[in-house]
Amino acid sequence: MKSDLNNFCVVLHEPRYPENIGAAARCCRNMGIPQMILVRPCRLDSEKMLKMATHEAANLIETMLVFDDLEEALGPFQHVAGTTARTGRQRLPTHTPRDMARKLIELGPENRIALLFGSENRGLTNSQLRLCQSLVNIATTTFSSINLAQSVMILCYELFMAKGHGEKVYPQLATTRELEGMYKHLKRAFIAVELTNPQNPEYWVDNTRRLLGRQELRSKEVKIIRSFCQQILRAIENKKYFRQ
Amino acid sequence: MKSDLNNFCVVLHEPRYPENIGAAARCCRNMGIPQMILVRPCRLDSEKMLKMATHEAANLIETMLVFDDLEEALGPFQHVAGTTARTGRQRLPTHTPRDMARKLIELGPENRIALLFGSENRGLTNSQLRLCQSLVNIATTTFSSINLAQSVMILCYELFMAKGHGEKVYPQLATTRELEGMYKHLKRAFIAVELTNPQNPEYWVDNTRRLLGRQELRSKEVKIIRSFCQQILRAIENKKYFRQ
Repeated sequence: MKSDLNNFCVVLHEPRYPENIGAAARCCRNMGIPQMILVRPCRLDSEKMLKMATHEAANLIETMLVFDDLEEALGPFQHVAGTTARTGRQRLPTHTPRDMARKLIELGPENRIALLFGSENRGLTNSQLRLCQSLVNIATTTFSSINLAQSVMILCYELFMAKGHGEKVYPQLATTRELEGMYKHLKRAFIAVELTNPQNPEYWVDNTRRLLGRQELRSKEVKIIRSFCQQILRAIENKKYFRQ
Repeated sequence: MKSDLNNFCVVLHEPRYPENIGAAARCCRNMGIPQMILVRPCRLDSEKMLKMATHEAANLIETMLVFDDLEEALGPFQHVAGTTARTGRQRLPTHTPRDMARKLIELGPENRIALLFGSENRGLTNSQLRLCQSLVNIATTTFSSINLAQSVMILCYELFMAKGHGEKVYPQLATTRELEGMYKHLKRAFIAVELTNPQNPEYWVDNTRRLLGRQELRSKEVKIIRSFCQQILRAIENKKYFRQ
């Protein structure tokens, strides 16, 4: 199943605000990560967590595990990816969320993977980063401090994309036959309303072709344009009768 | 300047929670979007907005424009990209945030671009979507309701990436000369501690090569391993003297 991120877990180390825990749970639910772990949370205010989690993600709040020790919390995981706002001096190369997501998906469902996030004020210290197999940094402007739940969202979003959910939803477009039928119909309408210069009958059609050719028209839209042409032709035909 | 997203603006239509406005401002500041517009916000609670924006993004809160009418708010923009949680029945093809970001960056700095987000409970209605030139949908699991500020973050993040900020930060690795010097040193140490079977002197070195070859070693790490080898060789040399 391409939607399966069941081997992933979001681990928050010393989160300070219950709102961020709740918002992180909602992200996990949006992107299909089934579990969260907290290590030494400052405050476990259920009401605030559940409000931000929304009803849909309440299950993640209710089933999350709470540990006193980070090393113990990370014990069952084969890979720990740590997030850091600093780049450069770490012992490990720092990945972008996109590269990281591709790499972690490649590890396959047999490997349990923890996404580790530090506290809101300090991030992850060097001793916590030592427990990580890989590091990820979210590029920013000079203001690099991203809200904790926002960082969780970017990583979860990139994992969901890396699982193949990034395909464009595209409508079925009109065929060449439909388009060419429409251009012929438009040409007749242009002639009928005397828009077209008889010296250069293709001038308006070519311009229209350039304009509509960019639009990625669907069958229904081609029919609407042809109905308009038809009514122009009919109206002019009626007027001719009226004049007679 | 690759960091320049000065022609972008985040437009929130009828946002309900001041916390989300503040969090959206922080995202804009993280990713370099200089301005926000609100249309008919339900509550403009400065304290709550500024708390979520943090000091760094206070300027975005202080300079944001507030309108009563969406069409008027969007008046100066050449392109309006609307976000929607629904796909399919819209009149426009729906893009992923990634495709959308590439497309919007291509429009260049001369075109002012509005990223339009609907209210937390209803999103954008069809009459609001009519003002958009393009639509974007963030893929999710069946729980498609993403927090407003999280949606803002994903779009701002993708724009920042599309501007070329997604490059991996990579340390300089050790050269072949450094690596081969290390393997020779290791071989001498393996022989000295009698780990190596004289029948197959390359066995341990080949295994070590496979192990360390995956590690993307840096010069400093090669030096640490060689220091360890050197101390093993010295210690054994000393022991020999002691025995004599």
